Amino acid sequence: MREVPSIPRDSDFRDLIKDSIPFKISGYTSDDLGSCLEEWKPERLSSILSERRVSVHVSSEPNLNFVAKNFKYEYMTFSDLFWRIKESQKCLNGDREYLYYRSLGERPRKDPSNLSSVHPYLEETFKLPAEISRILDDSSSSIHSTVFRISQPGVELWTHYDALDNFLVQIHGSKLVILFPPSTLHKLSITDTSSPYRNICKLDMDSANSELLSAYKLAYKTVLNPGDVLFIPAAWSHGIHSLFPEDDSEEIKTCISVNLFFSDGQVEYASKNVYGNEDPAPMKRACDLLQKDFLNLSLQLPVHLQKAFWSKVASISLQYLNNL
Amino acid sequence: MREVPSIPRDSDFRDLIKDSIPFKISGYTSDDLGSCLEEWKPERLSSILSERRVSVHVSSEPNLNFVAKNFKYEYMTFSDLFWRIKESQKCLNGDREYLYYRSLGERPRKDPSNLSSVHPYLEETFKLPAEISRILDDSSSSIHSTVFRISQPGVELWTHYDALDNFLVQIHGSKLVILFPPSTLHKLSITDTSSPYRNICKLDMDSANSELLSAYKLAYKTVLNPGDVLFIPAAWSHGIHSLFPEDDSEEIKTCISVNLFFSDGQVEYASKNVYGNEDPAPMKRACDLLQKDFLNLSLQLPVHLQKAFWSKVASISLQYLNNL
Repeated sequence: MREVPSIPRDSDFRDLIKDSIPFKISGYTSDDLGSCLEEWKPERLSSILSERRVSVHVSSEPNLNFVAKNFKYEYMTFSDLFWRIKESQKCLNGDREYLYYRSLGERPRKDPSNLSSVHPYLEETFKLPAEISRILDDSSSSIHSTVFRISQPGVELWTHYDALDNFLVQIHGSKLVILFPPSTLHKLSITDTSSPYRNICKLDMDSANSELLSAYKLAYKTVLNPGDVLFIPAAWSHGIHSLFPEDDSEEIKTCISVNLFFSDGQVEYASKNVYGNEDPAPMKRACDLLQKDFLNLSLQLPVHLQKAFWSKVASISLQYLNNL
Repeated sequence: MREVPSIPRDSDFRDLIKDSIPFKISGYTSDDLGSCLEEWKPERLSSILSERRVSVHVSSEPNLNFVAKNFKYEYMTFSDLFWRIKESQKCLNGDREYLYYRSLGERPRKDPSNLSSVHPYLEETFKLPAEISRILDDSSSSIHSTVFRISQPGVELWTHYDALDNFLVQIHGSKLVILFPPSTLHKLSITDTSSPYRNICKLDMDSANSELLSAYKLAYKTVLNPGDVLFIPAAWSHGIHSLFPEDDSEEIKTCISVNLFFSDGQVEYASKNVYGNEDPAPMKRACDLLQKDFLNLSLQLPVHLQKAFWSKVASISLQYLNNL
């Protein structure tokens, strides 16, 4: 697996964005990202965001998986979120709960997330580095949403792809990110936007199947530390594992990041795409045709010919893919 | 790789046909198959079929491949066909030509093949074993076509599937047959009805890719000798390698067989299906949609999203396949 290329902060990275190639810029400071880098520590956020109630993913397993749905959504205050993370970290592994928070919009099903709708303090203390803002402006790109994320170390977020380009800004704690190119959705068995595979970030080579292994050969990895910014291009699947801090002094161990989905408006979406994960309209149309028209066609055949039907559809699709 | 199951000739094999499972019956004699078993030797056929002109596949390579089209069609008399096989066998390997003949109908593009349209002698000296005829009658199946085949030992026929059920009757010489189930078309990269892979019957494990290796794990093999009948179900891909006789006494070494395509009429085809290899209508419709509508949809996207498009179409198709 290759390392995500690191580029200097004064690079012209417009072509990398245009060509859909991941990159990382390291070493941003409070001058670039705002006071969040100094201030967003669990205790302080807990006291400022305090009684604001939000929906949190809660699981008894560290590998949150959207396909297996091994988590529940629970409403709680930020105070409770940080308190439960702290209490959980005192437990033995088997008794732990695992919490993960992703901000939503003002009206969660209608509006994309932004920091101010979570709390004005977040908006006031976070900013994009000037050169990233400038390049977004130059390329006529607009920010679709800004998402605030808190995860407990040890949590692995299911491997998924988003439909929009994405800057992931690490503020507190560290994360391991594995990135798979758009050509590997079938190797990851992604049929919606999430992979059923778990432990993507801690691959066990002996138990992985050959398809998954071949996806890893095309993958990139990186560890994000505070002040790092990672470009995750649209349709690049990513698994994210929140790491435990090396020094054990913090009472509440968390990973805190912000990500910005953005788009140059060249690709059409079927809907408002509130969460940034809806397929482009032509891709959604193809999936609808498969799941309705193709399924009906296949059901006109006896089972052994249904197998030939779907195997041949896969074969033709893979040929188009390999010719790109 | 497993051996094709051998069953006794008095078995009730209707369920195997219905369930699309290959089987072999061995040991038929002239009482069952007619005098062809004794009479169809190269010298005799050459003298009887003599001046009848037919279209023959001719290649400088032993692995005939329909995707690479590494052969030409040449018109020649049966006398010439047998003479050229004999002359070729005197040459060193590198200078050889490789010949393969498959009979066609009276009007080759309009009529399915039958033995009498090649020569009345073939029709007179070949018959189906009584129990096979009876079971075809009982299951309201009708014979679509009867194909006469002559191949030079060493020739490997490209791996392909047919759309109809098939009894392959070995008359003279021996053949190695490898059979792959309908779920493996994508592992064999079959996008029409033929695989681009060569040497399927002499697998080189070190050079085969992981997809192809996984197809072999699901495959069956068998060697057909004179008097053997193999059931090849519709949509089972098969590679056929004509073997050299163990005893070297024959002056003209050939493999001669007859196959019968048959159908119970339950599956609809878009056309008359002259060669028995056209997909059932719902499968053909799906392939047409992929190659027109889906291709147009994909072209609305930038290249990196086209990759996601085809990879996701493959992924959804493979999920339907794996759920069958």
